[in-house]
Amino acid sequence: MGKQRDTLKKLARTFQIRHVLLCQALAECLGTLILVMFGCGAVAQMVLSGGSHGTFLTVNFAFGFAATLGILVSGQISGGHLNPAVTFSLCLLGREPWRKFPLFFFYQTVGAFLGAAVVFGMYFDALWDFSQGELIVVGKNATAGIFATYPSKHLTLVNGFFDQIIGTAALIVCILAIVDPHNRPVARGLEPFTVGCVVLVIGLSMGFNSGYAVNPARDLGPRVFTALAGWGREVFTANTYWFVVPICAPFLGAVVGVLIYQLMIGYHLEGEVQEKQREEEEDEEEEEERFKRSNMTTNEDA
Amino acid sequence: MGKQRDTLKKLARTFQIRHVLLCQALAECLGTLILVMFGCGAVAQMVLSGGSHGTFLTVNFAFGFAATLGILVSGQISGGHLNPAVTFSLCLLGREPWRKFPLFFFYQTVGAFLGAAVVFGMYFDALWDFSQGELIVVGKNATAGIFATYPSKHLTLVNGFFDQIIGTAALIVCILAIVDPHNRPVARGLEPFTVGCVVLVIGLSMGFNSGYAVNPARDLGPRVFTALAGWGREVFTANTYWFVVPICAPFLGAVVGVLIYQLMIGYHLEGEVQEKQREEEEDEEEEEERFKRSNMTTNEDA
Amino acid sequence: MGKQRDTLKKLARTFQIRHVLLCQALAECLGTLILVMFGCGAVAQMVLSGGSHGTFLTVNFAFGFAATLGILVSGQISGGHLNPAVTFSLCLLGREPWRKFPLFFFYQTVGAFLGAAVVFGMYFDALWDFSQGELIVVGKNATAGIFATYPSKHLTLVNGFFDQIIGTAALIVCILAIVDPHNRPVARGLEPFTVGCVVLVIGLSMGFNSGYAVNPARDLGPRVFTALAGWGREVFTANTYWFVVPICAPFLGAVVGVLIYQLMIGYHLEGEVQEKQREEEEDEEEEEERFKRSNMTTNEDA
Amino acid sequence: MGKQRDTLKKLARTFQIRHVLLCQALAECLGTLILVMFGCGAVAQMVLSGGSHGTFLTVNFAFGFAATLGILVSGQISGGHLNPAVTFSLCLLGREPWRKFPLFFFYQTVGAFLGAAVVFGMYFDALWDFSQGELIVVGKNATAGIFATYPSKHLTLVNGFFDQIIGTAALIVCILAIVDPHNRPVARGLEPFTVGCVVLVIGLSMGFNSGYAVNPARDLGPRVFTALAGWGREVFTANTYWFVVPICAPFLGAVVGVLIYQLMIGYHLEGEVQEKQREEEEDEEEEEERFKRSNMTTNEDA
Repeated sequence: MGKQRDTLKKLARTFQIRHVLLCQALAECLGTLILVMFGCGAVAQMVLSGGSHGTFLTVNFAFGFAATLGILVSGQISGGHLNPAVTFSLCLLGREPWRKFPLFFFYQTVGAFLGAAVVFGMYFDALWDFSQGELIVVGKNATAGIFATYPSKHLTLVNGFFDQIIGTAALIVCILAIVDPHNRPVARGLEPFTVGCVVLVIGLSMGFNSGYAVNPARDLGPRVFTALAGWGREVFTANTYWFVVPICAPFLGAVVGVLIYQLMIGYHLEGEVQEKQREEEEDEEEEEERFKRSNMTTNEDA
Repeated sequence: MGKQRDTLKKLARTFQIRHVLLCQALAECLGTLILVMFGCGAVAQMVLSGGSHGTFLTVNFAFGFAATLGILVSGQISGGHLNPAVTFSLCLLGREPWRKFPLFFFYQTVGAFLGAAVVFGMYFDALWDFSQGELIVVGKNATAGIFATYPSKHLTLVNGFFDQIIGTAALIVCILAIVDPHNRPVARGLEPFTVGCVVLVIGLSMGFNSGYAVNPARDLGPRVFTALAGWGREVFTANTYWFVVPICAPFLGAVVGVLIYQLMIGYHLEGEVQEKQREEEEDEEEEEERFKRSNMTTNEDA
Repeated sequence: MGKQRDTLKKLARTFQIRHVLLCQALAECLGTLILVMFGCGAVAQMVLSGGSHGTFLTVNFAFGFAATLGILVSGQISGGHLNPAVTFSLCLLGREPWRKFPLFFFYQTVGAFLGAAVVFGMYFDALWDFSQGELIVVGKNATAGIFATYPSKHLTLVNGFFDQIIGTAALIVCILAIVDPHNRPVARGLEPFTVGCVVLVIGLSMGFNSGYAVNPARDLGPRVFTALAGWGREVFTANTYWFVVPICAPFLGAVVGVLIYQLMIGYHLEGEVQEKQREEEEDEEEEEERFKRSNMTTNEDA
Repeated sequence: MGKQRDTLKKLARTFQIRHVLLCQALAECLGTLILVMFGCGAVAQMVLSGGSHGTFLTVNFAFGFAATLGILVSGQISGGHLNPAVTFSLCLLGREPWRKFPLFFFYQTVGAFLGAAVVFGMYFDALWDFSQGELIVVGKNATAGIFATYPSKHLTLVNGFFDQIIGTAALIVCILAIVDPHNRPVARGLEPFTVGCVVLVIGLSMGFNSGYAVNPARDLGPRVFTALAGWGREVFTANTYWFVVPICAPFLGAVVGVLIYQLMIGYHLEGEVQEKQREEEEDEEEEEERFKRSNMTTNEDA
């Protein structure tokens, strides 16, 4: 035991990274990896089993719980954003410095890329069995949809853009309410589960148009992976360059979400709290004065 | 950073509303918007995808979690009623002033209206694709049921009225138990999740007759929206003026629920607590007296 | 407002029951009513909709959450047993007095009876529509299974008895672990949810044989209701007097469950705790002695 | 009452085991029994009902909640590993002594064996009815898959090995994050539920290849049971000795999971905490010095 303990401590000292930002970026990477590994894994299970081992509901559950677990794993270090749109809105509100945004965006995308790779490896046999030797982006036996999102037939590009904006705005409004220091409606330690519920319910009600990416990293990382792994450049050109939508629209949605939350809830709560603080401060001052006076009188008495 | 912070503070000061009731009404509006957006969104997803992206179970989950999230977002400001029948029962019990009732009713209905509008916008393409260019209230390819509730074929108006009364009474009994200050069976911060469970289970067991509105605002707002958006006046006249049932019955159900809870649980708990308080007060008085006496003896000793 | 408050207080004083046992029995009655109303309501929804508005999974969810809500509503007053087998095992362990057992059994059965009546009323139209005017116990379009449990075709009476014993034993082991004062594995306020999970998982894995009654009251109450409401005496005679099994087997299962839990977990935990207490007491005594001595020395110094 | 209490105390004294390790092993045995009884029970319900009383989703839910309940029951005594791979990784990290590993492995396997026996007994009639008198391992009406895992047709042995490594690694990463004393992302008392979520999500996204054993005991125990209960030696030889994979791969997966978690999260968190501690210690020392000095001056003043 003694020897093992020493080895472990040595290992800890050797591999410990002291650069805080890098640690946070690594945590975001692992968190997004978990999100995509479980989420896209569930899509793979549904598609490749032909529906016998999964339905759209199981995919929704998987993405919801995957978000919960990703946030649990990374939350203590980086806050567990797992989504550039979330990082973006927190920067907008001045709660995170802007220099984190590109770093997190990059590492989140890398994590999503690696998550897609894990799913690819795990269902390698099933993929070849299902697709009969050909990795296709669009059409019957298409498998690219396991990794990145593609629009339904009925969807125009404009409606798709609007869909992603609404989805992300809904996500951001709920997340802001959950993490707002003046609101705090959730018991401590339940935030990851609540965010998981948000992701789940978005999937239940906003998933039909194009599969609720609402996350540029979750869509771009796996898409790049499929481009490299054998599906080719068509993953970018399909559906008249659809891939631009889940990268750009979520940031617009984040702005909309921040505005809605702040105008309808946030500013009023902040104001209330500040007023309370001001009153309390005044009360304290008064009390202090009273205390001084009483002391003075006591001293005088003495 | 400094500049951003200043801008944010300026914005906060400009848009902060100091009228407490208005803030609460806005919060109810946003909460009900979230409830209807996610809930009716799930119905839309089920109907428009022809069942491939949703079942009645997913709709139940969506309404349950939507209620949870709506309450989370608005709860700290307005209590998160999201339902005029809930506001009504709290007024009945004297826990909220009656002047809140019409205000909340109005803003909840407006929020539900806006939520229906968001769903309409998000699934615009899918709606036209599914209904083949015609927005129908009753019959094959009918889409009005996405937004407001309509009775099943087997349902008579009397049974429908009874159905809504039972559903709302069940909802109110459970909610009163959850928020009863003398009962408090739920850990702090879990109330929204528990209410979500109530809504979910009502959907699982009382949704077959007419789709468990149990909420006048959730039904009226979207119904008005559909009337304006192209479904026409038939949304009111269909099924021999069914629309009256989900507006009136829930208030009756609220009265029934309040009576059942108070007669079987509430009054006895209150009584117990009051007796305990009285005893404690008496104990305290006795203790004080004893304390005084012991002090007196000490002083005498001195 | 002042007038309303007075009326409310008067009402409270008039209807408050001071007999503790009666209050508890009423709470058990309401809790079991909620359990059966939501649980059997979900079965009704599944059966009467022909599967379009429910599956066996939704029934499992409904019974799980119904148990949670029933316990939440009644828990603070009566402990929320909702099941004579649970009351029985707590009496066995000496945590509840035996005189509560018949009282709770009776009121739980009455609650289940009333819950079945509510479901009958709510789905009155749907019942007649589905059964085409005839309430049948066994066969096609049979509807008695909505209220009480009946065995599957493959089940013999012996296996059915064994099935109910296992189911109840599993329920009791889990419940004892949750409420064991020496174990307390669950955060305060989460017990109702955990028991709901137990009921849910029993339904997921032990529901195929005969529908997991595991509760004499939940089965007997609705069965009596169906006998009176039009299904006739066949509800008792069907399947060679099956109705005896879900009344008797759960009590045997409770004994088995208590034995398994106490022999494998309970007694060892108790022992540990008692030893700790003894040690602590000894420590305290030592400390007190030390304290006395030090005081003595101080006093001597003085 | 007095007599009952005495009997109970006597029983407690007689059956209480004082050997801590044995108590822990018994708790692991009961916990794994619960895991397998509910989990494999759900598989049995799905298979034997031909899909009418269960789908792959219900199996996932059952295994998730079964893990939660197994951990709840055994957690306070043994930590609730229920999985030799979990015990293995905690030993690797030096948090549990190595001598626990073989003991826990054995008792976990025994518990899984007993759990399978309970399922066999409970669904005895249904099994013979479904399999028409013949217990088959592979092919139509095969029932061995209820108890142990067998690979899908598309799966090669190499991919299967990889699948089990990934699944276990994912499980271990999440569990380590949940129980890491420096991370603690979950509120106290919620760990069992979170681990249940992990098991659920692994089933939702990694269950298609071979049924996500990710647990040597859960697979070996029931497999031995089926070999003895009538399925014969084929349960070991089927699919070119597949049974080796779910026994060996999870340990490799545990190593991978430990490495990933420690390199990407664990070591950095530990380092942070240690630094904080060092700083705090230094602060304390400084404070103490300051305190001493001030005391000295006070004394000097005196």
